Amino acid sequence: MKNQDCIFCKIANGEIPSATLYEDEDFRVILDLGPASKGHALILPKEHFADLYELSDEAASKALVLAKKIAAKLTEILKCDGFNIVQNNGTCAGQTVFHFHIHLIPRYKNDSVGLGWTPGTLTSEDKDEILAGFGK
Amino acid sequence: MKNQDCIFCKIANGEIPSATLYEDEDFRVILDLGPASKGHALILPKEHFADLYELSDEAASKALVLAKKIAAKLTEILKCDGFNIVQNNGTCAGQTVFHFHIHLIPRYKNDSVGLGWTPGTLTSEDKDEILAGFGK
Repeated sequence: MKNQDCIFCKIANGEIPSATLYEDEDFRVILDLGPASKGHALILPKEHFADLYELSDEAASKALVLAKKIAAKLTEILKCDGFNIVQNNGTCAGQTVFHFHIHLIPRYKNDSVGLGWTPGTLTSEDKDEILAGFGK
Repeated sequence: MKNQDCIFCKIANGEIPSATLYEDEDFRVILDLGPASKGHALILPKEHFADLYELSDEAASKALVLAKKIAAKLTEILKCDGFNIVQNNGTCAGQTVFHFHIHLIPRYKNDSVGLGWTPGTLTSEDKDEILAGFGK
């Protein structure tokens, strides 16, 4: 089920273009436009779930397997030193788009990410390099 | 497979006591001793995986389903206003115990958690209240 007012529904289902790293029947993985670090990606289910509470067990059973796969690939490409998975539910928890999504945040020695980040800008250079690493 | 030098292996498998919220064949869910907020819990697989990269697909397919279930239960008990899932890999990403674990962090309006937290202390009162909510 899609929600016609939801921007992540439109992105996940390809109605709005995105820097897509991966897509299958259930998910789209895109680069975040306000990255916490180089390679910051989002896993979006194609079906609309507002948050973790609404997420179907079927989608939940696939999402972390996918996160692992994408994190491994990003690590191979970026040679990052670590990784955070962050998933926010509710305004007070930092959720800004009410369509379930998982943040994949590559970490680098001596970076300044902390876990409370100031959004940066996705540069064309970074975008192209990472897309290329995924064969896009 | 367990790692005999790993404290989370010992906790997950019951060799070291913990404030256990939930246990099944594959996982143990415990309250964090240095909570970011009231109800901060950890999901620990019983098998030893150092991090997300090592996590088996089988465990990955179960972990987020379990996280959803535990988050819903904690929300019911605590009446929290939101929830963060955080999973850290590598020292630079904030991982301190090298046994894969998922942080479940209840959030409250106007709390001061941010996403970079200073560990608090698990009080007996909070522990007892939450354990009681899980029928423990």
